[in-house]
Amino acid sequence: MSLEQARGVYVIAPTPFHPDGRVDVESTDRMTDFFLAAGATGITVLGQLGEAPKLEHDEALDVARRVIRRATVPVVVGVSAPGFAAMRSLARAVMDVGAAGVMIAPPNSLRTDDQIAGYYRQAADAIGDIPFVLQDYPLTFSVVMTPAVIRRIVDENPACRMLKHEDWPGLEKISTLRAYEREGSMRHISILCGNGGLFLDFELERGADGAMTGYCFPDLLVDVVRLTESGARDQAHDLFDAHLPLIRYEQQPGVGLAVRKYVLMRRGILASDAQRKPGAALTAAARAEVDFLLSRIARSDVRAALS
Amino acid sequence: MSLEQARGVYVIAPTPFHPDGRVDVESTDRMTDFFLAAGATGITVLGQLGEAPKLEHDEALDVARRVIRRATVPVVVGVSAPGFAAMRSLARAVMDVGAAGVMIAPPNSLRTDDQIAGYYRQAADAIGDIPFVLQDYPLTFSVVMTPAVIRRIVDENPACRMLKHEDWPGLEKISTLRAYEREGSMRHISILCGNGGLFLDFELERGADGAMTGYCFPDLLVDVVRLTESGARDQAHDLFDAHLPLIRYEQQPGVGLAVRKYVLMRRGILASDAQRKPGAALTAAARAEVDFLLSRIARSDVRAALS
Amino acid sequence: MSLEQARGVYVIAPTPFHPDGRVDVESTDRMTDFFLAAGATGITVLGQLGEAPKLEHDEALDVARRVIRRATVPVVVGVSAPGFAAMRSLARAVMDVGAAGVMIAPPNSLRTDDQIAGYYRQAADAIGDIPFVLQDYPLTFSVVMTPAVIRRIVDENPACRMLKHEDWPGLEKISTLRAYEREGSMRHISILCGNGGLFLDFELERGADGAMTGYCFPDLLVDVVRLTESGARDQAHDLFDAHLPLIRYEQQPGVGLAVRKYVLMRRGILASDAQRKPGAALTAAARAEVDFLLSRIARSDVRAALS
Amino acid sequence: MSLEQARGVYVIAPTPFHPDGRVDVESTDRMTDFFLAAGATGITVLGQLGEAPKLEHDEALDVARRVIRRATVPVVVGVSAPGFAAMRSLARAVMDVGAAGVMIAPPNSLRTDDQIAGYYRQAADAIGDIPFVLQDYPLTFSVVMTPAVIRRIVDENPACRMLKHEDWPGLEKISTLRAYEREGSMRHISILCGNGGLFLDFELERGADGAMTGYCFPDLLVDVVRLTESGARDQAHDLFDAHLPLIRYEQQPGVGLAVRKYVLMRRGILASDAQRKPGAALTAAARAEVDFLLSRIARSDVRAALS
Repeated sequence: MSLEQARGVYVIAPTPFHPDGRVDVESTDRMTDFFLAAGATGITVLGQLGEAPKLEHDEALDVARRVIRRATVPVVVGVSAPGFAAMRSLARAVMDVGAAGVMIAPPNSLRTDDQIAGYYRQAADAIGDIPFVLQDYPLTFSVVMTPAVIRRIVDENPACRMLKHEDWPGLEKISTLRAYEREGSMRHISILCGNGGLFLDFELERGADGAMTGYCFPDLLVDVVRLTESGARDQAHDLFDAHLPLIRYEQQPGVGLAVRKYVLMRRGILASDAQRKPGAALTAAARAEVDFLLSRIARSDVRAALS
Repeated sequence: MSLEQARGVYVIAPTPFHPDGRVDVESTDRMTDFFLAAGATGITVLGQLGEAPKLEHDEALDVARRVIRRATVPVVVGVSAPGFAAMRSLARAVMDVGAAGVMIAPPNSLRTDDQIAGYYRQAADAIGDIPFVLQDYPLTFSVVMTPAVIRRIVDENPACRMLKHEDWPGLEKISTLRAYEREGSMRHISILCGNGGLFLDFELERGADGAMTGYCFPDLLVDVVRLTESGARDQAHDLFDAHLPLIRYEQQPGVGLAVRKYVLMRRGILASDAQRKPGAALTAAARAEVDFLLSRIARSDVRAALS
Repeated sequence: MSLEQARGVYVIAPTPFHPDGRVDVESTDRMTDFFLAAGATGITVLGQLGEAPKLEHDEALDVARRVIRRATVPVVVGVSAPGFAAMRSLARAVMDVGAAGVMIAPPNSLRTDDQIAGYYRQAADAIGDIPFVLQDYPLTFSVVMTPAVIRRIVDENPACRMLKHEDWPGLEKISTLRAYEREGSMRHISILCGNGGLFLDFELERGADGAMTGYCFPDLLVDVVRLTESGARDQAHDLFDAHLPLIRYEQQPGVGLAVRKYVLMRRGILASDAQRKPGAALTAAARAEVDFLLSRIARSDVRAALS
Repeated sequence: MSLEQARGVYVIAPTPFHPDGRVDVESTDRMTDFFLAAGATGITVLGQLGEAPKLEHDEALDVARRVIRRATVPVVVGVSAPGFAAMRSLARAVMDVGAAGVMIAPPNSLRTDDQIAGYYRQAADAIGDIPFVLQDYPLTFSVVMTPAVIRRIVDENPACRMLKHEDWPGLEKISTLRAYEREGSMRHISILCGNGGLFLDFELERGADGAMTGYCFPDLLVDVVRLTESGARDQAHDLFDAHLPLIRYEQQPGVGLAVRKYVLMRRGILASDAQRKPGAALTAAARAEVDFLLSRIARSDVRAALS
């Protein structure tokens, strides 16, 4: 299946580490299995929250290869780099081991519409025909893309197959892109949403195909997508709302990854919540807050089961 | 009562306009009364979401005066300006009509710790002994203040009485500032939290004194503060969580004010949700989403009443 | 004469102060006379280096009025403001006292082409039919305008009559804009160059109409424009190059105004080089460096006179 | 000799390419020889203007190795990277082949003093005891370091041996750092200046030890340093001023490298002025301007020889 037809949840995978900093391959396998069991339709490795810059080139490739070989769903690999040489080199290597495509974020020096479109033409030229995901995340990258610029990138680059949408606010952008598609001014691409899932409820209703984010309950994301697709609007929102306090808590810049790894450890998926240095650890107060939020989610599950 | 002892909710007031762009004084009065009835312990006018830059100097002063005269609680007035002349001029004028203090945001050219501290010394020097609120909002102003810099500003400026805390993430910052206070390295100031209330539940538990934000249900903010202070933790979170989907929806940069005014109009407080030009209107889809969220809040209120 | 036909040198005027912070009206008059005697074809007041944000509204208007009444050339007034209310108010006031037009810089929140063009439509709408100068200064404002965006602003706003060009690098931009004009895709506007004059030699050769900057020897700018227009290329460059060490020294962000005022004081035009607080003073080392550069300019003048 | 004692000119080397994009090793050798003959006391490869991000890891290492083996002076290698893994990997590799040290620029996400100091502690920790050059270039990296922060980095990291100073304005910063040294609050490090040499004349007089920049006449930089050191102030400035028009022209962001390579080609050092894609070529107009500036420099040399 081609990436532009992708629907559902592409889970952003963290990179599991041992407390001493080595990549934890057992946890990587367990995590991959967990994502599949949770209903993921794809997996994304080496993204923003995958600690990719802390990995040597060979380590990064090993992580990607391991997940790709184990997964039965498409795997997208983040290849953003300060230069096209490193981008091309990693992109080719991961495609060789079976990746479904790569993801490219814009460098934060881009300002004008022409600069943004030009960058993606150069990147596509550098990596060849490899299918790529356009990442639109102004909060982190300081690059603002209008819907018209996204359309231009899609139009100029046949290899652009998917948008990782995480503009904020971003609901109208989804509506505009889908309107372009309906009016025939833009070909179809898959739109999967990031931003930690903070607006996933409405993003789906606006026309997004699913989520690409790493919220520590990917099973919840899968359920929300499924319920929304099946028209069970209130149930989808009930479920989403029960998790929103934690989704919101996880979506704190610079803290989110620690929360995510901590919960995945508590859920028995990662052996450790260690980040490779330099990384921010949760304080005792923050851990207690996450524990409290988890206990409230558990209670709401019980309530839902009883109702 | 002095500002550094402030607790509770200082509501950030929008400026009501008629559809033709004139300031709507009747709505301003009704809004002021509503805030008081909701339990506000203070009101802040001409803040970031008060459309202050669209007001002529005399209009701004009229709005401030009208709210100050009607309110029975302290009123803080935003006086951020590109230069100290305009800041001083407005600060003096609003103090003359009875403001309790002013609020000062940092200009986005500041980078180093010394530049930030220097700016507040100059500002305090420019406006004289007027009590001021330090606004710490990196997402909007691109100025990052460490806890140590905030302590330095408090130390160097006796007139600094309150922090409008809206860093993101910001929970550890509150804990650090309160630890400074306990260890005796910083005098007490009031900490009221903004960011649309998105983290108010835990901010209060970390030691904040309350909220300074304009969420369209200030009554909810008041209840959350009251329940938290009384130790009813689960009830506080239950209430907060019921509103979180809308809090989250309102906290969209550039869209939030339109949501806020729309809900205040629907609640009968504003005659119109008009913004003075240039302003962003809600699309039909966005209005429907807000309506949906309001219907869910209403239902949760019913559930709560029945339980 | 309409602004779009402007040629020559519009001197950016500093605002003269007494050491105690009062506006120095005698120096303001002397400075105006000096600019006229130096051959200025226009004067710009309340620009970036005019300390406008430190002036109360009435003071600003007084300064503008005083220069306008005394000058026999068109006077442009900077009206950039965080909101359209203040911009409109000042723009109307200065036009009432005889300004030839106003200058508008973009707020640094603008990113996309559409945002930039939209801002200028709104600004033009706010101030009415008042002729305005578009200021393009990415280094200071962090707003990057492509030539196509400038053309769009010119096209959408008949009141846009002049470009204050200070992009860096900017030579190709001038060539592109003039090519638009030749091919008929953009109407003629005047292009006057800022950036302290650092590239004036080649900017004129690329098609600029002159300078709009406040280099402390406006007489030199006038001579360079005149020599270039008359085809005396080597003489123009000889003269320009003799001043380039000081032009370069003056063009230091945050320091430049102190250099400029110091030299104008040494030349007998300003009674004091004081800036209103907060302002950066020259260190003794910096003053000695400027003195040294002045002595070398004086010597080169002697050499030129003898040759 | 240790890097902290370095004086003179460390030339920033461009990476020579053939028109088809391959690294041009013959030109690399010729360039290295030219720098040595010109009097360079050091060479810096893979810096900002060395097109490093366009090189594969092995290519980058090859370029560094080739220059290191041929050079009889210390070679510094730029190792800035988005993550510490890539930084460490390249740093170790180039030290193994004989580099004298590495250069580290700050990532543009750093804002507060603590963040900046923390980053350099982490970087030093990541690369081990390898001597490093601290690059202070706010214009490009958007990171502003006060003198006190630089002192803190020097104090906290024994491996920090040199400052590549290219703040703008930056003269007072040099004076402050040297005053720290005189008062005993900071150990001595070498200060070499970048910024294309635009302020080299005064930077040397303020206490800098020399230049680290790639101006297309490194021989001129060597002469200016030598004349200044010998006390021939006027001669130093005469020489510097003769080149200032071209120094200024070369110091245009994004255009500078094309100018530099073009002149080095015209001087017979590079076989081609090609940049690897994506790269900006000079327009015909720009080439003609550079040619004109070269002809004026040649004439001034003749004048100097005759005088």
